[in-house]
Parts: sequence; C-alpha cells; structure tokens
Amino acid sequence: MPEIGARVWVVPGGHIPFPSHGQEPDFTSFDQLCVLNATDTEAELSLDLYYEDCDPVGPYRITVGARRIRHVRVNDLIDPEAIQLDRPYGCLLHSTVPVVAQFLRQDTRLPGVVALTGTMAYPAPPHG
Amino acid sequence: MPEIGARVWVVPGGHIPFPSHGQEPDFTSFDQLCVLNATDTEAELSLDLYYEDCDPVGPYRITVGARRIRHVRVNDLIDPEAIQLDRPYGCLLHSTVPVVAQFLRQDTRLPGVVALTGTMAYPAPPHG
Amino acid sequence: MPEIGARVWVVPGGHIPFPSHGQEPDFTSFDQLCVLNATDTEAELSLDLYYEDCDPVGPYRITVGARRIRHVRVNDLIDPEAIQLDRPYGCLLHSTVPVVAQFLRQDTRLPGVVALTGTMAYPAPPHG
Amino acid sequence: MPEIGARVWVVPGGHIPFPSHGQEPDFTSFDQLCVLNATDTEAELSLDLYYEDCDPVGPYRITVGARRIRHVRVNDLIDPEAIQLDRPYGCLLHSTVPVVAQFLRQDTRLPGVVALTGTMAYPAPPHG
Repeated sequence: MPEIGARVWVVPGGHIPFPSHGQEPDFTSFDQLCVLNATDTEAELSLDLYYEDCDPVGPYRITVGARRIRHVRVNDLIDPEAIQLDRPYGCLLHSTVPVVAQFLRQDTRLPGVVALTGTMAYPAPPHG
Repeated sequence: MPEIGARVWVVPGGHIPFPSHGQEPDFTSFDQLCVLNATDTEAELSLDLYYEDCDPVGPYRITVGARRIRHVRVNDLIDPEAIQLDRPYGCLLHSTVPVVAQFLRQDTRLPGVVALTGTMAYPAPPHG
Repeated sequence: MPEIGARVWVVPGGHIPFPSHGQEPDFTSFDQLCVLNATDTEAELSLDLYYEDCDPVGPYRITVGARRIRHVRVNDLIDPEAIQLDRPYGCLLHSTVPVVAQFLRQDTRLPGVVALTGTMAYPAPPHG
Repeated sequence: MPEIGARVWVVPGGHIPFPSHGQEPDFTSFDQLCVLNATDTEAELSLDLYYEDCDPVGPYRITVGARRIRHVRVNDLIDPEAIQLDRPYGCLLHSTVPVVAQFLRQDTRLPGVVALTGTMAYPAPPHG
C-alpha cells in the first residue's frame, strides 16, 4: 500500500479544560490526539509540547501499532513531565512512518453540559 | 468537469458516543461520513475501520451516485460486522472516483444537550 | 498581492438543523458559508447544491467585494430554489477569483442550548 | 530543523459572540487565534481584519517567540482599532517566519451553556 499521511503534524491550539463534571473517564474534560497508522510498521511517535512562556517539553513517546489507531488523551501524558491542566500549549508530533493525526477537545467545565471541538491536525509537507 | 477531490480519505478520530437522549433518529448520538461525488460516474466506496487492539475490519461498501452526496451514519454500518458503540476507531476510505469527505459527530449522551464536532477528512495525495 | 486561496471549494456535509429555539436571527439554526476575498477584484461566486436523491440545483449567485468578506446563511438562499431545512445536501462553490471558504453550523434545535461545528471547506487544487 | 508551516494564513469566518455568561475570562465569549512557531526565530505577525462593508483594518501586530506558542483572543486586539463584538469579520495573517495557525471560538451567549467550534486556519501556499 502506498504511504498515507505525513511524518510531522502540528496542533497549535491545545488547552485542556478544567475542571470537569460528570462520570470519569467518559465525561472528563480532555484534549485528545487521534492517530491512524495504515502502514505495516509500528509508528514510534515523539511529541513535543510548546508553551507561551518556556522552552518546549518532550519528547513524550507513544507507539501506534501497524494497521492500528490510537486515541491519546493529552491529560494522561506524564513522562517526561505531567501536563498541567488549564494551560495553553501546542504540540508537534514526529512519527517514524507516515500517519494521520486529528485533534479533539471535550469540555465539561459546566455541570450538565458537554462541548466538543476538533480539527484535523496540520500536516507538514514531506520535505517541509 | 475536472476531477474534484481525492480517492483516499482518512479519519483517525472515530468514536460513536453512547448512550443517546432524545427522539430517534434526529437526536441519536452518531458519527457520520459525508461524501460529495461531483463526477459523472457512480463512486464505489470501500471503507476499512481501524481499531486499537485488532486488525482492520472491512471493506464496508457504500455507493454515491454521479453528482450526488451521501451522508452515512457509521452507526448504521453492519456488513461485514456491526459497529460497536463507544469504541475508538479510525477509518480509511477508498473511492473509485475522486470525491470529497467530511466527518461529523453528534453527541447526545446528556439529556437535553446536543454537542457537535467535525472536520474535513484528510485527503491522501493522488499518488500518496 | 499574490493570489490567496482557490477558485473551487467543496462542503459535502450540509444539513440545516430544524427547528430553532431562541431569538431570531441570532439563535436561528443555520448552515453558513464564510468567504474571504483578498483580491482587488470582486468575486462572483456560483454555488451548486448537491443532494442524495436528485440532480444538483444551481447556480446560486453571490458576490463578495474586493478585499471584503461575506458570511452567507445557506437558509437565506432562495434563487433558483429555496433551500429545504432538515435535508442533507453538499455544496460546490466556484469563484471567478481566488477566495477562501469556511463552513459553520449553528444548531438550536433544543431550547436553551446552542451547538456549533465547522471546518475549513475543501479547496480543489488550481488545476484539479 | 526544516521549516514547518506557512507564512500566510486565512480565517474567513470570524464573529465574536455577544454577550457572555459566566466567570471572566474563562467563560467569556471569544474568537481565538492559536499560533505555533517551531523556528528558532521570533515570529512577527501582522494581522489584517476584513469586513463585509468597509476596507480591511490593520495591521494588528503580534509576536510569537522562537519555539513558543501564543493564543490570542481576537477580543483583546485594540490597536489600531478595537474589535467590535457581534460583527462578521475575517482575517489574514502574515508571519515573518513559517508558523501554524488554528482558529477557536467559545460561545457563552446562553447562560449555563458553552459551545465550541474551530478549525485549522487555511495556509496559503509558499508562493501562493
């Protein structure tokens, strides 16, 4: 199968909402990265988080099996450093094989309300 | 008319919300693929669903007539295998002719609330 | 200024929610096309609506002045044919000069709730 | 590191919701531009706002440090001219170095409800 996707993806608008209302983990406020790896090789992802007021933090390492997807809540990333809630960030994703990346936010800051937003991440060109 | 769109589209972030509240089918929680075929030829779509913990399942076969659209609720796909609600997935769409694909989610897990999110799907380059 | 944007844009996932709750026109359910024309020439847009079960309807004609934006509620299009609410459609936009097009939906089918979703439209390549 | 992103980004669908409900600034209605600068050079952004009924207004000047992000509420832009709430606009962003730009809207016009929508901005091609 020809290669599908890109090796570099960018999401500038990260910000995990805080607090949450409703049953965990379904109604926890979160930012999520959703990655699809259509290749026959495991994808080793390396994620760097960018901030407004300090140097980038990373790499956070994630693997996505061959012909698998993985939905990662940014909230759950703890190594090399736990993510702070309610703090603006962006992220830059590098993959060892081409993948496709999508961003999703769930916001349950208000009781009895769920808000969603998302977008495909921005793919850097192959030789970008 | 020149060709508009691509033959391969990707949505990594599928996850049909469960449960639903409100009148069916208008307020059922769903994930939806919206496809526009601007060509003069019927599009034969073949959809493969990717999961976190098993091999892809498919192909799900969908047709979109010449110069027609089709909005398909992923919930409604049953052959070769009914889609499980509340389970992360991604999808890879192949079409026999160029089409354009968009993804939409409606979430009515909470009574009296509707949340929406969506994005254009990711088009794989012609020779990608 | 170099040309910014594309002459052909596609939105497969149109569907104006019905009914609406709340004060008109601010809280009316709508689908909207938002177009930015950065050129020094008025853009003449021609919009064709695609359906699931009949031939496309159009052209709907819209102008966007030089160095202007225009936000058009699809609900408001009436010539050559009024748009039916709660009916799936897609649209194909042609412009005489390069523009950028974005899609937005506001859903107020439930009283006291507003849901939003949107995405950049899909730009057909210059020679696509 | 190779260059990631583009020097020109477009968002046609701006419209800051009005009014707001809930605690400021967390629940203020806003439109937001989120920019990631992965380069080793400070990005000088110049933002022009386009309207339906008058010439573009700008440039609004914003800087994003080297290897930093910045999330800017459009509501907060005041020079050369404060942004009017509840007025349709679009924006054109120029950057001195390649960046990635995302658009987010938070709508709290109804008490006890938050709605979100967003999309990656449209990147003009390098020589577009």
